[in-house]
Amino acid sequence: GTEAARADLILGVDTFYLIYAGALVFFMQVGFAMLLAGSIRSKNVKNVLLWNLLDSAGGAVGFWSLGYAFAYGGDDPSKGWTFIGNRGFFLSDDVDMEFWFFQFAFACALSSIVAGTIAERSKMEAYLCYSLFLCGFVYRGSLHIPISAVCAHSFWSVNGFLSPFATEPLWGSGAIDLAGSAPVHMCGGVAALVMAIILGPRQGRFYDDDGVPLEEPKPMGPHSVTLQFLGTFGLWFGWYGFNPGSTIKISSGELGDVASLVAVNTTLGAAAAALSGLFTSTLIDARKTGLYTWDTTAAMNGCLTGLVGITAGCATVEPWAAFVIGIVAGWVYLAGSALCIRLKIDDAVDAIPVHMLGGAWGVIATGLFSNAYRLERAFGSSDNIGWFYEWARGSGNFTLLGIQLLAVLFVFGWVCAVFTPFCFLLKITNKLRIDPLEEEVGVDFSRHKGAAYNNEEITDDSISKLSE
Amino acid sequence: GTEAARADLILGVDTFYLIYAGALVFFMQVGFAMLLAGSIRSKNVKNVLLWNLLDSAGGAVGFWSLGYAFAYGGDDPSKGWTFIGNRGFFLSDDVDMEFWFFQFAFACALSSIVAGTIAERSKMEAYLCYSLFLCGFVYRGSLHIPISAVCAHSFWSVNGFLSPFATEPLWGSGAIDLAGSAPVHMCGGVAALVMAIILGPRQGRFYDDDGVPLEEPKPMGPHSVTLQFLGTFGLWFGWYGFNPGSTIKISSGELGDVASLVAVNTTLGAAAAALSGLFTSTLIDARKTGLYTWDTTAAMNGCLTGLVGITAGCATVEPWAAFVIGIVAGWVYLAGSALCIRLKIDDAVDAIPVHMLGGAWGVIATGLFSNAYRLERAFGSSDNIGWFYEWARGSGNFTLLGIQLLAVLFVFGWVCAVFTPFCFLLKITNKLRIDPLEEEVGVDFSRHKGAAYNNEEITDDSISKLSE
Amino acid sequence: GTEAARADLILGVDTFYLIYAGALVFFMQVGFAMLLAGSIRSKNVKNVLLWNLLDSAGGAVGFWSLGYAFAYGGDDPSKGWTFIGNRGFFLSDDVDMEFWFFQFAFACALSSIVAGTIAERSKMEAYLCYSLFLCGFVYRGSLHIPISAVCAHSFWSVNGFLSPFATEPLWGSGAIDLAGSAPVHMCGGVAALVMAIILGPRQGRFYDDDGVPLEEPKPMGPHSVTLQFLGTFGLWFGWYGFNPGSTIKISSGELGDVASLVAVNTTLGAAAAALSGLFTSTLIDARKTGLYTWDTTAAMNGCLTGLVGITAGCATVEPWAAFVIGIVAGWVYLAGSALCIRLKIDDAVDAIPVHMLGGAWGVIATGLFSNAYRLERAFGSSDNIGWFYEWARGSGNFTLLGIQLLAVLFVFGWVCAVFTPFCFLLKITNKLRIDPLEEEVGVDFSRHKGAAYNNEEITDDSISKLSE
Repeated sequence: GTEAARADLILGVDTFYLIYAGALVFFMQVGFAMLLAGSIRSKNVKNVLLWNLLDSAGGAVGFWSLGYAFAYGGDDPSKGWTFIGNRGFFLSDDVDMEFWFFQFAFACALSSIVAGTIAERSKMEAYLCYSLFLCGFVYRGSLHIPISAVCAHSFWSVNGFLSPFATEPLWGSGAIDLAGSAPVHMCGGVAALVMAIILGPRQGRFYDDDGVPLEEPKPMGPHSVTLQFLGTFGLWFGWYGFNPGSTIKISSGELGDVASLVAVNTTLGAAAAALSGLFTSTLIDARKTGLYTWDTTAAMNGCLTGLVGITAGCATVEPWAAFVIGIVAGWVYLAGSALCIRLKIDDAVDAIPVHMLGGAWGVIATGLFSNAYRLERAFGSSDNIGWFYEWARGSGNFTLLGIQLLAVLFVFGWVCAVFTPFCFLLKITNKLRIDPLEEEVGVDFSRHKGAAYNNEEITDDSISKLSE
Repeated sequence: GTEAARADLILGVDTFYLIYAGALVFFMQVGFAMLLAGSIRSKNVKNVLLWNLLDSAGGAVGFWSLGYAFAYGGDDPSKGWTFIGNRGFFLSDDVDMEFWFFQFAFACALSSIVAGTIAERSKMEAYLCYSLFLCGFVYRGSLHIPISAVCAHSFWSVNGFLSPFATEPLWGSGAIDLAGSAPVHMCGGVAALVMAIILGPRQGRFYDDDGVPLEEPKPMGPHSVTLQFLGTFGLWFGWYGFNPGSTIKISSGELGDVASLVAVNTTLGAAAAALSGLFTSTLIDARKTGLYTWDTTAAMNGCLTGLVGITAGCATVEPWAAFVIGIVAGWVYLAGSALCIRLKIDDAVDAIPVHMLGGAWGVIATGLFSNAYRLERAFGSSDNIGWFYEWARGSGNFTLLGIQLLAVLFVFGWVCAVFTPFCFLLKITNKLRIDPLEEEVGVDFSRHKGAAYNNEEITDDSISKLSE
Repeated sequence: GTEAARADLILGVDTFYLIYAGALVFFMQVGFAMLLAGSIRSKNVKNVLLWNLLDSAGGAVGFWSLGYAFAYGGDDPSKGWTFIGNRGFFLSDDVDMEFWFFQFAFACALSSIVAGTIAERSKMEAYLCYSLFLCGFVYRGSLHIPISAVCAHSFWSVNGFLSPFATEPLWGSGAIDLAGSAPVHMCGGVAALVMAIILGPRQGRFYDDDGVPLEEPKPMGPHSVTLQFLGTFGLWFGWYGFNPGSTIKISSGELGDVASLVAVNTTLGAAAAALSGLFTSTLIDARKTGLYTWDTTAAMNGCLTGLVGITAGCATVEPWAAFVIGIVAGWVYLAGSALCIRLKIDDAVDAIPVHMLGGAWGVIATGLFSNAYRLERAFGSSDNIGWFYEWARGSGNFTLLGIQLLAVLFVFGWVCAVFTPFCFLLKITNKLRIDPLEEEVGVDFSRHKGAAYNNEEITDDSISKLSE
């Protein structure tokens, strides 16, 4: 009786935890929306805001109908690796509602990542097609690098070929990625890269009207730095659902310890990356110009890259390592952003360096810094540990780092392989890019019934009449 | 000992749940404020923002002093139907603090709904009077359609004449409305309708200066679509407190199941309605003009109508039904919005179609789609179930649908009956509408010490001096 | 077994509570950022937004490396008063992660309070130096007035000289301040005052170019009242983590009761102060001008002063007292704001009246209104109670009120004593104030690569081309 009653209460507490964390992850959509809207030019604001709402709305319907079943449906520890799930379509077959809710919010993030990169020049049709394709199908593939779970009793993707929870995990280990640096962020970031390349840059960004490369790329946006900050803060806040919530349960002291470590590491990763992005960019600039300036974009996108980078290892590294991961993440962002510009890849919100490179760095860093104690607590096994720790104990065991590198290659390869032909198909059928004139005027005007902002002037005439 | 200790822990967990949910419902005030401010013209922004702050501030004081006592005070299962509560004024008589906190946040929403509709032309006095009247008195009447509770052990309005928790509920059933499609949203929406009609449209909206009807109504606002989206997302986020929180408790597996179903249904209702509002409006427009455009307002207000529509039945319908309810909600919004314009009812934020019609649809849909299993779990009784299910089991039992229709009529009738004379009183005493010149200049200038936005220009002169 | 299992679940629940509350307190950074940005002129928006991000990022790193260890490290009930903690640097020595996370969010608020006051004229170096100094060192000193804890079993600063949890608390009592009116808000507010005086007002605010005092101070900002409201609402929302979270635990009915009382009192304090600030300012203005206007700033800053004011006593006063505290807080704000202007202290966001005076009032009010029942439940002792209650029971015991007054004097004295020389040092080394020309052009242009807002116009030419 007592035992059953306690188990019942535990069910309630853990459900509460997932509903809470899911709500915070949903809040990340607010963050994405504000960040995106702020980062672009004012003439396309309605367009990207609508896309963000559709990320949630379409994401919910897509994840309800197909996505969840493909991603998690019918997982079965007695079976080997499977490519795709096949149960739980339309929330049938006793799907755990709270788990679906939490995962739905994750799936929405995927298309939001891409939306920013390709803003200001893509067709509505392209958006609709890719977001369905990405959430419905691509996500599942990359999910084989499991979003994972916190304790040996609770896991969710037992049939992934890289999963640490498979009956016979690859190389006896499986990849470690608590909250999804790889299957969410890197997956979205690679998709953004593929689409940005095939789509091409915005008019006038790297080339003049005659197609001659500009000496300096023309900055386009942000139209509101305030909105960018609002978005960045909103994402950071939501991340406290994204990462700690990925422990799925909180109904014991040990689970609580893991979740609070996750919260602390998330904080330190974000903070270190914001500082490293900001100060590094200031120093680089000061070397060139002699003037100390402070680049808000470097701070904000550094911060976001730190959040992405700590997402994989937040449960298995020590706080000092989270700090180091964040510092490097800031550099990864700066280097990646500069590289995109050099390669003339036009990323309207820098999602490629933030999510793709940040995600890859996070997965690799987890293979470097995860220690035995934390791995044991969070994943129930510590046969293979972070390479720095293996090294410290005189071992040559490269298994964990190896499988993390494999995971990075897998996500990169998988998304490129399925998304490239898909984007070319969109291009060939002329569904990818808007008309040049539309691009000049702005999609808000051509497709959304007018501008996002309408500040009318009050005439001095009426004012003087009033004061009479 | 053990049993008592467990009960004590349960008390703590459930209190946590209500404090959490109440905070999220409070966040809806942020959403309302940004949605409202964004939807109107820039010259009245300070005015509506202040109203929104007063919704919370005045709402708190009003609900503390009178509202709670009228709404819930002295409920007693041994008594029959009562018209009004009479205990708990000023939080006396051992009121549960966490329950008060959660309910306070609900009460605030009521006046926010009205504030949007009547913006840009109402006097401050009118706002102050109606919001007190609405929260203090009207709410209680409509509360007789109970905001309800999730399990047989916890209910809160045992003396409502439509309550399923009354000792002898009406027709042996009582109306089913988990989180308040009727007593919050429809109640607010009807009040908005009454006031909008008595107040009349904004200058120049439907008539020119000589009172001749315009061929096309003149669009007024939005001044910032970004703020509208921020508000919509904020409301959606807050709704995860509003609906799941209305289960009041989460301290068992069964309660957790109900709450997570509620979260899922809330998601699907909102998502389906956003898609249905957007795509339907696109198709209608494309028929007329041949051009595919995407109306952000249809997507946002469709989404909100879906949230309102799923609020009543979120604990008692299956996810597929939540999807259907959402799809219809999108159409309800579009039809209602068009109807308001045809009838020359000027609703500055479309609160009437969203909250009144969405709320009515939600209550009715609950009478159609609630099934026996969900009703049993959430309300502890399944004698009368949704009409589609009655029909499917060959029964002619119309009780639940009947009582839901009665509830809709009751709320409509009740609010019209008490709010119409009240508004006429305001009109006769000249407290309702601002001066025409004030309306032209904007209330921000005439009553709030100047414009909401002040972007000064930096002179090129100073800039060139700096670079020297 | 059962007992241990229950204790384990309790650990999980309480950890969840702190992670949740910490996330909400973190959200206050969003509120501070938007409030600050909205309150100033558009030419310095990027600057203050960046400061706000650094409050979190630098705050995290500072609190991780030194701040936590100084503030809480090595507390030991067997020792007497200590000046500074000495364990837990870099989260070593088994620091509770969830507690660190919650406290980190508190520490960030400190520098955000100062940032607003000194905006638009301070150097980046000044910001970086003071925020480190404040969080790392000053906070600890004022922490000796403990942020406290809710029940006798859980306390956190047993070695503070004013702590009610010391083995031998001062005068047998110790100061009562649940969530930090004194060590967070008043501390930040006094620092803001010191720095504002040493820094001097913005150019043209109180004096013309020749240094002649203006008849009327020139208003500077707000550039966006919408952002101010967004910030105010965001802060209010976050306060539901700040205050109720300060009970640290929620895993019993009694703890839940304290936390929900805190939520209710927080609500009433904020609400009453918003109303009192607004209506009082309206009445004062109407007396002077004969016109009824409604000052949004008075409502918002009144509200915030109420939140600050109720922060100390939210667990130990009755709801009616919270209402009274709020009413007075509104007046405290208005008087303080007027006084600052009369003394020509230029506070860009009125943080001095809000946080310093509001905080002082809160600490004093706790000494007036705390009753025996609430003190017993929240702090486990009621030997000394609020002065009004002592008076009512015919006692002349002035101990609690006396120690609260001492706490106010101590915080004021401590912060002035250490912060004044620090600011003079910054001034002498020319690290405090930006160049006058930079101030005229705006820091965004001179140090942050351009303006925060860039709204380009769409040419009619392109539009007409599109329609062809």
